Amino acid sequence: MKRILIHEVGPRDGLQMEKQVVPLEIKEGWIRGVMDAGVDLVQVGSFVHPEKVPQMADTDELFRRLTAGKTGSTVLSGLVLNEKGLERGLQCGVEMFCLGASASETHSRKNTGIGTEEATRRIIGAAKQAVAAGKKVQVSVQSAFGCGFEGPIPEDRVLGMVRAYLEAGLTNISLADTAGHADPAQVERLFGAVFALDPAVECTCHFHNTYGLGMANIFAALRAGVTTLETSFAGLGGCPFTKVAAGNVATEDLVHALHRQGLRPDVRLDGLLGVARSVAEHFGRDLPGHVYRTGPITTKEAS
Amino acid sequence: MKRILIHEVGPRDGLQMEKQVVPLEIKEGWIRGVMDAGVDLVQVGSFVHPEKVPQMADTDELFRRLTAGKTGSTVLSGLVLNEKGLERGLQCGVEMFCLGASASETHSRKNTGIGTEEATRRIIGAAKQAVAAGKKVQVSVQSAFGCGFEGPIPEDRVLGMVRAYLEAGLTNISLADTAGHADPAQVERLFGAVFALDPAVECTCHFHNTYGLGMANIFAALRAGVTTLETSFAGLGGCPFTKVAAGNVATEDLVHALHRQGLRPDVRLDGLLGVARSVAEHFGRDLPGHVYRTGPITTKEAS
Repeated sequence: MKRILIHEVGPRDGLQMEKQVVPLEIKEGWIRGVMDAGVDLVQVGSFVHPEKVPQMADTDELFRRLTAGKTGSTVLSGLVLNEKGLERGLQCGVEMFCLGASASETHSRKNTGIGTEEATRRIIGAAKQAVAAGKKVQVSVQSAFGCGFEGPIPEDRVLGMVRAYLEAGLTNISLADTAGHADPAQVERLFGAVFALDPAVECTCHFHNTYGLGMANIFAALRAGVTTLETSFAGLGGCPFTKVAAGNVATEDLVHALHRQGLRPDVRLDGLLGVARSVAEHFGRDLPGHVYRTGPITTKEAS
Repeated sequence: MKRILIHEVGPRDGLQMEKQVVPLEIKEGWIRGVMDAGVDLVQVGSFVHPEKVPQMADTDELFRRLTAGKTGSTVLSGLVLNEKGLERGLQCGVEMFCLGASASETHSRKNTGIGTEEATRRIIGAAKQAVAAGKKVQVSVQSAFGCGFEGPIPEDRVLGMVRAYLEAGLTNISLADTAGHADPAQVERLFGAVFALDPAVECTCHFHNTYGLGMANIFAALRAGVTTLETSFAGLGGCPFTKVAAGNVATEDLVHALHRQGLRPDVRLDGLLGVARSVAEHFGRDLPGHVYRTGPITTKEAS
């Protein structure tokens, strides 16, 4: 089995959904906690207009702080939706650019103001620039499994976008279930079709738990050969421009589950639980994650 | 693919965990709602000592009311832990007896006052009596995937109990994850081992969502060939005598997911959502289910 990588997207996908803007120092503490726990990738923030998503206004400054004198192997990623974002990211130390376009025409227009085709073309252009600048790049298809506005998304449309990415030499590809519509059979089928296009593609999955299927979909993705899993501390998350938004699978719940199966024992669960508890405490409410509340399963304990 | 059956256990596993005793008329309304929705089996209650579990004191009366002039094909089941319970169940119209013993010595003693071996022997005796009385019977191994008190449970011990059930001619067998310790790989492995003992066995699964893996485990069980799925309205549930108790997968979330995959379109989701909303309203708090809060995915909707 190929090595599974964990991509923490809480600082971006989680915090963009919260009404309150989290102070930079607190965000920085959470991100450093995740890095210290040995998570492979952390999405520090997105480069969007600060008036549109004020929660992400400090992304540039966060990158500058986190990359200064950085040690450890965690890769710091940033989400970019257009050329302007790429420019900002190149200036502040982004290590991996995550760029995406939505397979839903309606979601694409709400999120970026342009349609799927134009967004895909522009994303590919920006991704090539990032590659040319020596950066790691992940390209994604958002709303790949369905859309709250449009309903089912034709698989051909998703595969067409994947094909365009592959033809541009972009082989790190994410399918994102922005609306939470995916089911396990669909996940295996669609990722299977992606691997049929190119068996060497590196696939990432990103599931929202809107209807309770997030974790089941992750295990279906693993079965299909997906190697990078995007999750969020304490299960925070959701796209502000989708119809029914809900959290991601909690990173610490996923790591706890992987540990049960003997996978990624090197990732430190206690560190992740500490971050999740701190996030829940900060927001002052119960968040979707399970294990930060129950504590992990212990192998043997006194009654 | 074999037909998947849904066994609603909310009236028993869900309500036994709630501090407040739900009035009989309200329970009856919820159960009738589930029956009207076309769910295959409903666990009306358990036959335990009313002082030990006062929430279940009205089980006999509920059975009498629900079986009087009953129409529709839903099978009404009752949980029995000993001979006394069987006697009560035979007198009030139970259609299917669910009997179980725990693979965890500690959990067995806390739940029933006797150890695994004696409990298994007594359960088999009672199950045979129920069969002789012309009743449907399901026998279960509780704590089959791990125990909050004892930690991992040897798979050989679980399979030994299954073998004893099979040798007694009991072929409707449930593995219950009382503590929520199961992971998808373990689920496939253990049910696979059960089917290896007897490919004709009818298997049921029962997962608690303590650590966030309930739905993923159900899909793993389906893959292994399990055909009956036990879930609870709005995701209520938990055994009062386990260490860290948490809810089941929500019945309406499961049916919503099955519908996404084209399975069991005959079960009426709207009816189940009505029950789940009524349960949540009654308890006055958010319950674990997702779809009763978000509403189902609609195929096509206006933005």
